[in-house]
Amino acid sequence: MSASLNGVSLTSVRERDQKDPLANFKRRFALPEGVLYLDGNSLGAQPSTVKQAVDDTLNQWRDELIKGWNQGWFDAPERLGNLLAPVIGAQSGEVCVTDNITLNIFKLLGYILGQCQDDRRAVLSEGGNFPTDGYIAQGFCRVSGTEHRFLPEGANLAEHLEGVAVVVLSQVNYRTGKLRDMAETTKLVHAHGAEVIWDLAHSAGALPIDLNGSGARYAVGCTYKYLNGGPGAPAFLYVHRDYQDGGWQPLSGWHGHTSPFAFDANYTPAGDISRFRTGTHSALIYSALEASLTMWAEVDMQALREKSLAMSDLFRECLSDLFDSHGIKDITPAASERGSQVSLIDKQNGYAIVQALIARGVIGDYREPGLMRFGFTPLYLSFEDVWQAAKHFREVVESGEYQDAQFHVRGAVT
Amino acid sequence: MSASLNGVSLTSVRERDQKDPLANFKRRFALPEGVLYLDGNSLGAQPSTVKQAVDDTLNQWRDELIKGWNQGWFDAPERLGNLLAPVIGAQSGEVCVTDNITLNIFKLLGYILGQCQDDRRAVLSEGGNFPTDGYIAQGFCRVSGTEHRFLPEGANLAEHLEGVAVVVLSQVNYRTGKLRDMAETTKLVHAHGAEVIWDLAHSAGALPIDLNGSGARYAVGCTYKYLNGGPGAPAFLYVHRDYQDGGWQPLSGWHGHTSPFAFDANYTPAGDISRFRTGTHSALIYSALEASLTMWAEVDMQALREKSLAMSDLFRECLSDLFDSHGIKDITPAASERGSQVSLIDKQNGYAIVQALIARGVIGDYREPGLMRFGFTPLYLSFEDVWQAAKHFREVVESGEYQDAQFHVRGAVT
Repeated sequence: MSASLNGVSLTSVRERDQKDPLANFKRRFALPEGVLYLDGNSLGAQPSTVKQAVDDTLNQWRDELIKGWNQGWFDAPERLGNLLAPVIGAQSGEVCVTDNITLNIFKLLGYILGQCQDDRRAVLSEGGNFPTDGYIAQGFCRVSGTEHRFLPEGANLAEHLEGVAVVVLSQVNYRTGKLRDMAETTKLVHAHGAEVIWDLAHSAGALPIDLNGSGARYAVGCTYKYLNGGPGAPAFLYVHRDYQDGGWQPLSGWHGHTSPFAFDANYTPAGDISRFRTGTHSALIYSALEASLTMWAEVDMQALREKSLAMSDLFRECLSDLFDSHGIKDITPAASERGSQVSLIDKQNGYAIVQALIARGVIGDYREPGLMRFGFTPLYLSFEDVWQAAKHFREVVESGEYQDAQFHVRGAVT
Repeated sequence: MSASLNGVSLTSVRERDQKDPLANFKRRFALPEGVLYLDGNSLGAQPSTVKQAVDDTLNQWRDELIKGWNQGWFDAPERLGNLLAPVIGAQSGEVCVTDNITLNIFKLLGYILGQCQDDRRAVLSEGGNFPTDGYIAQGFCRVSGTEHRFLPEGANLAEHLEGVAVVVLSQVNYRTGKLRDMAETTKLVHAHGAEVIWDLAHSAGALPIDLNGSGARYAVGCTYKYLNGGPGAPAFLYVHRDYQDGGWQPLSGWHGHTSPFAFDANYTPAGDISRFRTGTHSALIYSALEASLTMWAEVDMQALREKSLAMSDLFRECLSDLFDSHGIKDITPAASERGSQVSLIDKQNGYAIVQALIARGVIGDYREPGLMRFGFTPLYLSFEDVWQAAKHFREVVESGEYQDAQFHVRGAVT
């Protein structure tokens, strides 16, 4: 008789792997032995083409020196933006890969408010969003003399848009994995005369996104989570093509100038998405990301979504009998409102359970207070991986292994 | 009889190489065959330890995945800042390696003006400075409602400080190579009740800098020119230790928070140089730069300065008889007022001469109007390299080789 977890047999998950249309992607990643990695929502795994791509760029630096800037380095932010565009439902010329999310939100706040003629000028940040989105809105508001407000977590957005010029919202919440309906929310915000900047950090590469189809005008996101660009890979910024002639963004550097090599004294923004560039970017990190995005061009996003939901459901199904008896609360949203993660809360033991799992090579992560996050990345996880990870989870909890003192030591957590 | 250029014999320069205390550094760079590289002032050459360092970080990403952030990635901005500090006359804790120069100027403008209590609030940019320094000051002034002014090129600074809160000055001008006296200028600006942000892009790694000894409170600079960090390597930002408790900088992201992993809703800046970080940085590019900065710890900056001046003088000495007869104007400043470059102007033929030299493997660069720039990097150039480059220059000019149509085609120039 096959091994089974809460009635889910190993045989059955192996059968699912046999039929998985995305199964072949796993061999295109360089994955360490003996690790079950459920933290691709923090840092994605390494595509196996990255090493060569980075090495090629190092050789280019060595051999071509300054000439490298005319051989693909300079145009990388737009070229990679065009590679990424289909993955998020955008068109060529609407996406620029540049800087980080924090800085890109600042640019868009300045760009939008610089065009705002009326008295509604407040910036609204989402309570419970990833903190940097609020921090940079606060920084923007301080320097520009703009009012800043927080939308209380769980509040009705429509009731908080009075006097608001811009609201920054995450499509998928980093803690709960809760997915917002982008089309519906965008329509609501626009109907109130405000703009929305979408943060796609936890949705880009995790599920199909239709920026154009949702009426979205502005978005930012990162490439080092589900998009596998490497630690600290550059972020992206999207502006719908009809909203690209709005003047300055405040982080006006020479790469965003309409003629960077004319060396004019005064700044004139580029007429297109390039205006959101700032200063000189690293050629090296663009080459790593380009290797990954080239692979993403082959991914069927609907198949990705189906596998993502099936994996997160499988993980919970293998464990659901355990949750109540051990005081673990499953706050994972329903499928239609879910990103690509499972979120479990155990305020007393969550930290130690995650540490005990890491010691076994099952990598999830922990966020205060009490939140255990497990990310499901359909390109390099198999159904059997998910089942094996659930088996470890069950063993750690049932055996009380997490009670060992070593798993309660608090260190830096990323 | 030895070959000779305007009386400077090849034998004599080979003798100088024999006695050069920095000669051994050249073998620590990966340099292409057949190239004489006089553009280290745009993009430095690759230290031979970089490849292994980057490969190690790629392996760390592959094998350690998210754990890499606790294994040196997260602290890289401060760790590399401390490595860099002695090279620019700063102390540990005064330098943060982060983002790019453009963004770092914006942060310092906001940080300084956020503390400014009186009416003098104008930002003064230097006419003739590298354009991005002025562009970002203009962006800052637009978003913050601050007055922006330009100091006319060549004007007396003391006469333009009325009502000025901050002036942004380059220590070495990117076009002319002209060096400002940092101590004297800082004293002058402070005496007028203003602050100065020094841009060290063309001086860091090019000559000894004494930020502390000069009374400098704020500076930025780049690491991809004389410091060999690689194309688009992260920039640095310096704040004197006595000026680090001044509150917010406006690009307030989670890595600059006093407790980044507490995930507080509200921003509280770190109490030290870390407050100038923004969002997540690339681990990959820090590893390349760290390999270079580790080498810089061994460099005798006085010996570097002597060799730099000797090389730029050698280049001009080999060619000085040619300049007048061919309408070339040598605007290189005197030794005491020089960075590490030779600047020659030929409005008619400058572009074509530089292109003809590049075709021969002698890499300098060109800036409108008419400026030929040749950078001298003492770590990987020998006196013979300089002599050979001068020989090519002489041949290109004397033969009229530059008149070939191919050298007059204008392309993107970086």
